[in-house]
Amino acid sequence: MENQHRFCVIMCGGIGSRFWPYSRADRPKQFIDFLGTGRSLLQMSYDRILPLVPKENIIIVTNEAYAPLVREQLPEIADESILLEPARRNTAPCIAWAAYHISARDPQASMIVTPSDHLITNEREFEQSIRRGFEFVETHDALLTLGITPTRPETGYGYIQVGDEVETDINRVKTFTEKPDKELAKVFLESGEFFWNSGIFLWSAKTICNALHEHAPEIAAKFDEGIGVFGTDRETAFIETNFPACLSISIDFAVMEKAHNVCVETVRFGWNDLGTWSALYDMSPKNRDANVTQNCSVLSYNSRGNIFAVRGDKLVVVEGLEDYIVADSGDVLLICPKAEEQRIKQMVNDAKMSFGEKYL
Amino acid sequence: MENQHRFCVIMCGGIGSRFWPYSRADRPKQFIDFLGTGRSLLQMSYDRILPLVPKENIIIVTNEAYAPLVREQLPEIADESILLEPARRNTAPCIAWAAYHISARDPQASMIVTPSDHLITNEREFEQSIRRGFEFVETHDALLTLGITPTRPETGYGYIQVGDEVETDINRVKTFTEKPDKELAKVFLESGEFFWNSGIFLWSAKTICNALHEHAPEIAAKFDEGIGVFGTDRETAFIETNFPACLSISIDFAVMEKAHNVCVETVRFGWNDLGTWSALYDMSPKNRDANVTQNCSVLSYNSRGNIFAVRGDKLVVVEGLEDYIVADSGDVLLICPKAEEQRIKQMVNDAKMSFGEKYL
Repeated sequence: MENQHRFCVIMCGGIGSRFWPYSRADRPKQFIDFLGTGRSLLQMSYDRILPLVPKENIIIVTNEAYAPLVREQLPEIADESILLEPARRNTAPCIAWAAYHISARDPQASMIVTPSDHLITNEREFEQSIRRGFEFVETHDALLTLGITPTRPETGYGYIQVGDEVETDINRVKTFTEKPDKELAKVFLESGEFFWNSGIFLWSAKTICNALHEHAPEIAAKFDEGIGVFGTDRETAFIETNFPACLSISIDFAVMEKAHNVCVETVRFGWNDLGTWSALYDMSPKNRDANVTQNCSVLSYNSRGNIFAVRGDKLVVVEGLEDYIVADSGDVLLICPKAEEQRIKQMVNDAKMSFGEKYL
Repeated sequence: MENQHRFCVIMCGGIGSRFWPYSRADRPKQFIDFLGTGRSLLQMSYDRILPLVPKENIIIVTNEAYAPLVREQLPEIADESILLEPARRNTAPCIAWAAYHISARDPQASMIVTPSDHLITNEREFEQSIRRGFEFVETHDALLTLGITPTRPETGYGYIQVGDEVETDINRVKTFTEKPDKELAKVFLESGEFFWNSGIFLWSAKTICNALHEHAPEIAAKFDEGIGVFGTDRETAFIETNFPACLSISIDFAVMEKAHNVCVETVRFGWNDLGTWSALYDMSPKNRDANVTQNCSVLSYNSRGNIFAVRGDKLVVVEGLEDYIVADSGDVLLICPKAEEQRIKQMVNDAKMSFGEKYL
């Protein structure tokens, strides 16, 4: 029987600009059928969580611009479970609001907080890990983060170093580490002490609210003013006024890296943050020329190591291209070496300078 | 006052496969607004000829598949002036039919025969050259071809070597020469004796019919069977039966390279056969990064020497690409180095093998 105190918060307010033009301001990455499975990344996140918490306890937090997309893609979610941010304020205010909202509905709640735009494989392992995590945070006053067992010396992720074991597969956190260079990443991998920081958290509503009071008191104070309005028809008006006044800060920086009751559950399911075209390329199945194809047909000649992400039923014919991104969203075509993908942000800015909002 | 005996034959039955996918089987190059002027190459050919011959004397010869396109683009042309080939048989049968058709309408006719998919600049010079050519073929029993004054050692064109002068700017033809290599092309250019073979011809109907009898007797015999039907409502049925039985051969090979009464008018208007992407690139205005843009907006970074031919109001963003063709027709995207464009034919074949007619 399902535990009625378990909640899930799916965060889906990001704009995914690193995947422009495939990801667009009006339909970011999490709303796209990114892997050609017939379900968007958001829908896949929802499907994954459905066996774990009661459906009515799934909360979506997003920017108010994306309300129509959320309603279209997840018609099962009631309007009162869609929290619409009037401004982008990173993850700490987002999570704080969700925690206060859930506390008002159920003071005994425990919750998982998850991004909506990551890829997770081996869902059976995922389910077991999440159940284990819920059980832990329901019996310990701890902030639990999931650490993914690394499979390669990845330089694009943050790492968590484990400290003393608390229970099997659950340890105290010793350090959070930024993206390492290649050499250091190899050392991390070989040590067995370092795990990828997944950005997936579990805790009780009470524990996270206490942590916000202790480590992010300005944010907690804002939401404390709203006690009594969460879950009522006054919540929206309160948020419209108070949410934009919150500091824009990540939950890692605001709470996780400061708190002393942080634990990590080391997990073994497959995970990729789909943070860059190269990451997507690396995790995708490749054809015999090491090209990756998304949603299109490709005829390639003397071309290796490319990723083709083209919307619509389109044929791409390519000769003499190596290690490029070719992304076509219908009205924008991007051709860029994978090694230069950090320049895409600048390109988006330039497109804005030259053409206004048209191609964003 | 216009000379009522002057006719024009515009040939527009080609499929333009070297410009695939921008040129497609259902809308080849000549029907496309190739230069972004608002008029297709066929329409530009028509506009150019309009001051030179009576409108009702302009004959279009095309494949029957393109009848709707011709009617759409040239609504001024009466149906009886659109000759629809039931099969592709190269230029000799095409020109023979037009010559017999015109002879039936006016035994004293003179005519210019012109492709529909070339670019001509300096139209005032063009008009003067064509008037001069008409006057010549109306007073001489000669087949006249236009030789373009070369401006560079082009290896992609055929050349005509001039012989003895007949009149100012009109000489006997000494040789027709195939595409030369670079060294030879330089010699040709410096000699002053060699001109580009434009594929534009002038002659009287009587002279070309005589030449067909002498040099292509099988073709002439076919059309001789139809004397009496040309210009009547029996012409279509006659052509349906007899045209496909003609040898497929070019007028150059069937007549021009054999006949002894061939002259060349050396002309000075600007001309490009738009035969290849590289030719189109070379003749097009370039931006400061030496890129050529057709019908689209481009943001380019570290990219030089490319040609972007993209239909629709599309933004192309490109990084680190040099000397490529990027052509997008909506449902097909081609990315290919200019130096490899001779491979496009193979790509079209491969697309047909894999996907049938869909992307042709």
